Amino acid sequence: MRYELYYWPGIQGRGEYIRLALEEAGADYVDVARGAHGMAAMMKMMEAETTPPFAPPFLKAGKLVLGQTANILFYLGSRHGLAPKTEAGRLWLHQLQLTVTDFVLEVHDTHHPLGPSLYYEDQKAAAKKRTDEFWSERVPKYLGYFERLLEDNGGKYVTGRRLTYIDLSMFQLVEGLRYAFPRRMKGFERKIPGLVDLRDRVAARPNIGAYLASDRRIAFNEDGIFRHYKALDA
Amino acid sequence: MRYELYYWPGIQGRGEYIRLALEEAGADYVDVARGAHGMAAMMKMMEAETTPPFAPPFLKAGKLVLGQTANILFYLGSRHGLAPKTEAGRLWLHQLQLTVTDFVLEVHDTHHPLGPSLYYEDQKAAAKKRTDEFWSERVPKYLGYFERLLEDNGGKYVTGRRLTYIDLSMFQLVEGLRYAFPRRMKGFERKIPGLVDLRDRVAARPNIGAYLASDRRIAFNEDGIFRHYKALDA
Repeated sequence: MRYELYYWPGIQGRGEYIRLALEEAGADYVDVARGAHGMAAMMKMMEAETTPPFAPPFLKAGKLVLGQTANILFYLGSRHGLAPKTEAGRLWLHQLQLTVTDFVLEVHDTHHPLGPSLYYEDQKAAAKKRTDEFWSERVPKYLGYFERLLEDNGGKYVTGRRLTYIDLSMFQLVEGLRYAFPRRMKGFERKIPGLVDLRDRVAARPNIGAYLASDRRIAFNEDGIFRHYKALDA
Repeated sequence: MRYELYYWPGIQGRGEYIRLALEEAGADYVDVARGAHGMAAMMKMMEAETTPPFAPPFLKAGKLVLGQTANILFYLGSRHGLAPKTEAGRLWLHQLQLTVTDFVLEVHDTHHPLGPSLYYEDQKAAAKKRTDEFWSERVPKYLGYFERLLEDNGGKYVTGRRLTYIDLSMFQLVEGLRYAFPRRMKGFERKIPGLVDLRDRVAARPNIGAYLASDRRIAFNEDGIFRHYKALDA
C-alpha cells in the first residue's frame, strides 16, 4: 500500500514529524501536495463528507484518512516497528508525542503570540516578550523533561533500548531550535547533552541521512513553525 | 477497579473533559488532589522514575499511569462505551478530540498570549488583541467545523447516532465560552444551533445532570482555562 501524505508543500511544519517516520520506516509514500495538482487534491480532501480533516497534515492509508500529527504517528508506529508492542507502551509513547505537539504550538506562538492569522510584522514586540518567556520557562521545562526521560533510560532512546518515532521528533526539535534561535540554542545545549547526542545518532541513521540529503527534505524557512527572526534570537 | 484522577483541585481546566467522561460512564473514580494530602500525592506521581507525566491531568488505571487529556479519553472511551468499536472509528474520534485540545490551548492563549507563566494583568493589551482575533477567526473555524460534522451526521451526535466523549467535550466548550465571553457568545450562538442543541441534550442526561448539580463539579473561575475578564468580552 502506498500512503498518501497531504501537507503544505513549502514547509516542514507539522508534516515533518510524519515524513521522518515514513522515511525511517522506508515506507512507500507520496507527498501529494508537492506534486502536480497536489494542492487542489488536498483542498478537495478537506471538503469530504465523511471524516474531513480539520487541517493538514493528514494521511490516506487505503480507505482510512487520518488527521492530527500525533494520531498519524500512533497509527504508523505500530505498523512500522517505530512503537512498542504493548498497549501500555504505545499509549506512553503517544502521550510523549502529544507533549511534543503542545511544545510545537508554543514554538509557533513565539512568532505569533497575537494569533495565527496576523502577520509576524504586526506583532513583533509581543513576539519578543513571548520568546523571552519561552526560553526562560518553557524550553527548559519541555526539553528538560525529555532529557530526564532519556537519562532515566540509560541515554540510548527516549522510551528504552529501541528507536521509536519520539526519537525522530527529538531530532526535529533540536534541528528546529538550532535553525530558529542559533544564539539562544547554542547557550542552552549544554543542559541537554543527551538530546544533542540523540540528534546526532538519528541524523546518522541510513534512511534519515539519505532523506536529509535529498530534495524531499524541505529547507527550514520563515513560513514554517521554526522561523529565524534575528530580533527574537537576540 | 477504581480509577485515580489527578488534576489541579481548584479548576475545571483540562481535567474536566475526563471528569465528564467518567461521570457519564458511571465509572468508579476518586479525584485525588481534591482529597486530604491529594496535592502531595499528585506531585509525588510526577517524580516517578517510570512514565512520569509531564503535567496534570493524569489517570491511574491499575498499574497504568496515563497522561494527556485526549490520550486518557482514548483509553477510557473504548472501555466505557463512549467510543466506536472499530479502529477506524476510534482514531477518527481521537482525531476530533485532538482538535479540541488545539482549541483549548487557543482559549488559554486569549488571556495569556505572552506566555503561560506571566500574569494576565501584565499582558492585558496583548490579550485583547489575541481575543479579537480568536473571535473573528478561530472560533468560527473550530466551532464551524464541529457544527458541520454534526449536520452531516443528521444532527444527533458529532460522530453518528451514539454519544461519544467528543459530545461531552462539545458541551464543555459551549459552557466555557458562555462563561468566559457571555456577550460575544450570545451573538455567535445562532451560527451553531446544532452544537447548542447538543449542549442541552448532554446537560439533560441523568449522569451528567447529577454531576453538574453536585459539588464534584467545580465552578468556572479565573484560574482555569475559560476565564471571564470583562475587558476581553467587550
